[in-house]
Amino acid sequence: MPELTTSDTNTPEAVAEPIFQRLVLIGLGLIGSSVARAARETGAAAEIVACDASEAVCTRVAELGIADRVEADPALAVASADCVMLCVPVGALADVAAVIAPHLAPGAILTDVGSTKISVVRDVGPVVPAGVHFVPAHPLAGTEFSGPDAGFATLFQGRYCLVVPPAGTDAAAVARVVALWERLGAMVEEMEPAHHDRVLAVVSHLPHLLAFTICGTADDLADETRQEVLRFAASGFRDFTRIAASDPVMWRDIFLNNREALLEMLARFTEDAQAMARAIRWGDAGYIEDRVLRGRKIRRSLIEIKQA
Amino acid sequence: MPELTTSDTNTPEAVAEPIFQRLVLIGLGLIGSSVARAARETGAAAEIVACDASEAVCTRVAELGIADRVEADPALAVASADCVMLCVPVGALADVAAVIAPHLAPGAILTDVGSTKISVVRDVGPVVPAGVHFVPAHPLAGTEFSGPDAGFATLFQGRYCLVVPPAGTDAAAVARVVALWERLGAMVEEMEPAHHDRVLAVVSHLPHLLAFTICGTADDLADETRQEVLRFAASGFRDFTRIAASDPVMWRDIFLNNREALLEMLARFTEDAQAMARAIRWGDAGYIEDRVLRGRKIRRSLIEIKQA
Repeated sequence: MPELTTSDTNTPEAVAEPIFQRLVLIGLGLIGSSVARAARETGAAAEIVACDASEAVCTRVAELGIADRVEADPALAVASADCVMLCVPVGALADVAAVIAPHLAPGAILTDVGSTKISVVRDVGPVVPAGVHFVPAHPLAGTEFSGPDAGFATLFQGRYCLVVPPAGTDAAAVARVVALWERLGAMVEEMEPAHHDRVLAVVSHLPHLLAFTICGTADDLADETRQEVLRFAASGFRDFTRIAASDPVMWRDIFLNNREALLEMLARFTEDAQAMARAIRWGDAGYIEDRVLRGRKIRRSLIEIKQA
Repeated sequence: MPELTTSDTNTPEAVAEPIFQRLVLIGLGLIGSSVARAARETGAAAEIVACDASEAVCTRVAELGIADRVEADPALAVASADCVMLCVPVGALADVAAVIAPHLAPGAILTDVGSTKISVVRDVGPVVPAGVHFVPAHPLAGTEFSGPDAGFATLFQGRYCLVVPPAGTDAAAVARVVALWERLGAMVEEMEPAHHDRVLAVVSHLPHLLAFTICGTADDLADETRQEVLRFAASGFRDFTRIAASDPVMWRDIFLNNREALLEMLARFTEDAQAMARAIRWGDAGYIEDRVLRGRKIRRSLIEIKQA
């Protein structure tokens, strides 16, 4: 985990220079509100402006006091900002970007936190005005909770943040986005959009698809059995429902915007599940044991690299 | 959660009468060693005898001091016992039962903790001598760890234990097994073997099959990507690998011994996953959102009944 920049003075305000003078967050859900809290705590921005399409969220953010200013109108919110971070579901990015684009200051950095990156480059890239630097990013952090109350300042501590700049992006702008995420506590890696989408399909999007699906399968069982499914939910099913409790709009958008990679990984997975089904039907104990051992191997690798 | 029986004396030993004079545990893995610890802590048995096919496990159990006596020979171990509990993988139950059956004392109770129950009734039932009461059971408790060091006395606290007696089983014998599990902290329910196997297929066996399978799917990816799968494992995948770290022999045996119900649930699940894939391919946002919302609904139900 990166350490905060140290300083030769003892006043907390002087521990680290702000990376941005005015950081505008559009969308104050779990991620946006965590960025607000972490940016204030680490002094990453001199001023934090919050903007959300929901009046209720704007009111709540003002009550929580996690931003210096709350501005309902995105066009007004982004004025004079040196960094605008879009923290809305990926399906809403194109519309939001189109609304704010004419109002972005020359030299400003536009970034996002979306879980799919080919689609973000495709949807947002074309509307970014000349002189504005577009640096997509994706912090690999979250919980199953949503909304401005769910956020917390340490959400990104020790977690990866993938920065995915399109070819030709200004290096100084990329460096500032990297510096921002490192200040918020993340370990930053650069990655190509297509590669990002394949890796995320298997580590995150497919597991969520399976979790949502098994909840539906259980829900379809006859009423009597469903009650018992709930009463006797053993640890396996409980872990699945934790995953499945995530935000519906966010996940709908992720599935629709990482279609190719997700469908490929699901096809591979389905082949493997059918092979397992065949081994069970025909009593192939060796095959089953081998597949279970592979799970342990992956788990051990995760523990070794301290991600578990 | 049931409270311990209270007594009008203040000496801890007198808090509750032992339910069995000699409880013999065959197999001292996570479950067997947890029963040993919980039985001693709650005074459920006057004497606890441990027996395991592995010399290393016998040595370790003696070192841990969690049994009053360790006996490597199962025929000797079960002599004069009023309760013998088989805590071995379900695939090993038939052999173990055949070895101990001639040595069981008249009136003794034979029970087990296996995760599949049709197979246990089929495999163990026929070798039980006349005068011995066979009362299969299944505590819905566990962790991803294995072996005698992994057990702990509170494993069954507040968890369900399903008691699955074949038709015609002696009611007094069933009542003593129920009393034992309640003493160990569990909430006990009676259930038919076939019904047990269907409910467990969906709440536990299918989730584990999916978890093992996705680990294999990830392991099959090209080396470069696999490394990144491990490095960037987001929360979804991490939860899956936790499930997938469970004991390979135990799970191989569960899959082989709950074949019919598990294959049916996997077939239903696969249909549902294919329907989701089709919705993603054709951009059916409403369908996807509906399935994600169902996950939330199941989750909320779990929280309401305090199983989450």
